[in-house]
Amino acid sequence: MPRFKLTIEYDGGPFVGWQRQANGLSVQEALETAVAGYCQVDAVVHGSGRTDSGVHALGQVAHVDLPRHDPPGKVRDALNAHLRRHPISIRQVEQVDEDFHARFSARERSYVYRILNRRSPPALDAGRVWWVGADLDAGAMHDAGQILVGHHDFSTFRAKECQAQSPVKTLDELAVTREGEEVRLFVRARSFLHHQVRNMAGALKLVGEGKWTADDLQRALDARDRAAGGPTAPPQGLYFLSVRYPEHDA
Amino acid sequence: MPRFKLTIEYDGGPFVGWQRQANGLSVQEALETAVAGYCQVDAVVHGSGRTDSGVHALGQVAHVDLPRHDPPGKVRDALNAHLRRHPISIRQVEQVDEDFHARFSARERSYVYRILNRRSPPALDAGRVWWVGADLDAGAMHDAGQILVGHHDFSTFRAKECQAQSPVKTLDELAVTREGEEVRLFVRARSFLHHQVRNMAGALKLVGEGKWTADDLQRALDARDRAAGGPTAPPQGLYFLSVRYPEHDA
Repeated sequence: MPRFKLTIEYDGGPFVGWQRQANGLSVQEALETAVAGYCQVDAVVHGSGRTDSGVHALGQVAHVDLPRHDPPGKVRDALNAHLRRHPISIRQVEQVDEDFHARFSARERSYVYRILNRRSPPALDAGRVWWVGADLDAGAMHDAGQILVGHHDFSTFRAKECQAQSPVKTLDELAVTREGEEVRLFVRARSFLHHQVRNMAGALKLVGEGKWTADDLQRALDARDRAAGGPTAPPQGLYFLSVRYPEHDA
Repeated sequence: MPRFKLTIEYDGGPFVGWQRQANGLSVQEALETAVAGYCQVDAVVHGSGRTDSGVHALGQVAHVDLPRHDPPGKVRDALNAHLRRHPISIRQVEQVDEDFHARFSARERSYVYRILNRRSPPALDAGRVWWVGADLDAGAMHDAGQILVGHHDFSTFRAKECQAQSPVKTLDELAVTREGEEVRLFVRARSFLHHQVRNMAGALKLVGEGKWTADDLQRALDARDRAAGGPTAPPQGLYFLSVRYPEHDA
C-alpha cells in the first residue's frame, strides 16, 4: 500500500486536540473518518506530534497508508471533499517511501505563538490569539528569551502530564517580533515537551509587562520546577507551523 | 451631550449587516444595545456607511452622542465590556466636535478584498476570505484594474438595490497584490456604490483566471449595465478598512 505524507491546516477550536479521545472529536478522528469515506478502510493517520484542544496548525504533518494508487493531487482533493464539514484542510499530499514516519522521521518542529497586544479585545481574531491589554516590550521579551535557547533541563516549562522520558531538550531558535498590534513568538527545536511553548510564552509575557527581568527568567529556568515558571499561555494563540524531515535538508 | 467618534472592528458573519433590520441582529443594533447598557439611553449610533451581511470591518467609523462626559478610554472599555458576547470591538474612541458626522463628514473610504488562492480550502480563514482554487495572475488583475481608476459611470458594478442618486463615482486607487497564497484587492474612493467593490472583485477574478482580458473589462465598464459585469464576489472576503475625515488631512 502506498504511503502518503499529508500537510494539514486546522482550526483547533472545535476539537479535543490532535489525538483520538473518548470525550469528543479530535482532528485525528476527523481525518481517519475522511480516509474511511474516501477509501473504505480503517487506516490510522499518524501525526508528527500532538496538539492540545484549541491549538491550531498551519503545517501539521501526518502519514497514512492507502489501498489506492491515486495521484497525490487527487488524494488531497478527495480528502478535502470528505472534510468539508470541519475546519481542517489538507494543504499538500506527497507520496513517500514506506520508511517515512511523520513522528519518528521528524528532525525539527516550529511553532508560532500570537499575542494581540492592544487595549481593545479581538473581534476578527477571537479564538486565534491571546489578548493581552497591557503594553508588551517585544524587544525585552526577545532578549530575555535567548536565555532559553540551547541545551537545557526545561522542567520549569513542562506540564505535569508530560510523557517525555527526559526534560532535557535543545531549543534551536527563539524570536519575538512585533508587527503592529501583534507580538509573535517563534520557536524551533527538534522536539518540545508538553506545554513547553505555552509555558515559555506565559513567562515571556511577564518579561514583556516588566513584571519579570531577564534574571527572573534565568532563575525560573534554573529552578527546574514548574511552580517557578509563571502562567501557561492559553491554547488559542498557538500555531503548529511546520515540521522538517531529512529529505528536505538540502 | 458630548459626541464621540468610534473606530470599530467586527466579524460580519453573525450579523445581518451594519444597518438595523427587523430580520435579525445588526452591528448597529448590537452597538446601540451596548450604549443603552452603559448609559441607560436610547441613542442612535450613526455609521460612516453600511456593510452587507457577512462583510467585515477593521476600521468602520461611527458617532454617538452620550449623556456622560467620560474620558474616551473609559467609553471604549465600557462599550467593549457590554459587547463581550459579540465579535465587535471598539478599537478607538475620540471626543469630537458636534458638527462631526461619521457619514457626512467622511472624505474617503478604503476597502480590502481578500482572496485565498490555492487548491485546498481555507481552514483557519474560513468565513474570512473568498476561496478561489484556480491560479490567479495578480499582476494582470492589477494592470487591468487601472481601467476602473478615475471618474466613471459605474452602473456595470452597481447593485440593482443601490440607492445612490448617481452611478458616477471617482475611484482614486486600485491595487492588486499577492502575498503568498493570498491575492488582495485594495480600493480607495470618496464613496462607493452598493456592491461596487464586490462586483469589481468578481470581474477582476475573471481577469486573473484569464477568462477576461483588459479589453473585456473596458467593454464591461463601457456597457453601463450590471448584466455585463460578471459575478458578484461573496461578502466574506470584504473588509471595510478605514475612513478619512478632514481633520486628519494634514
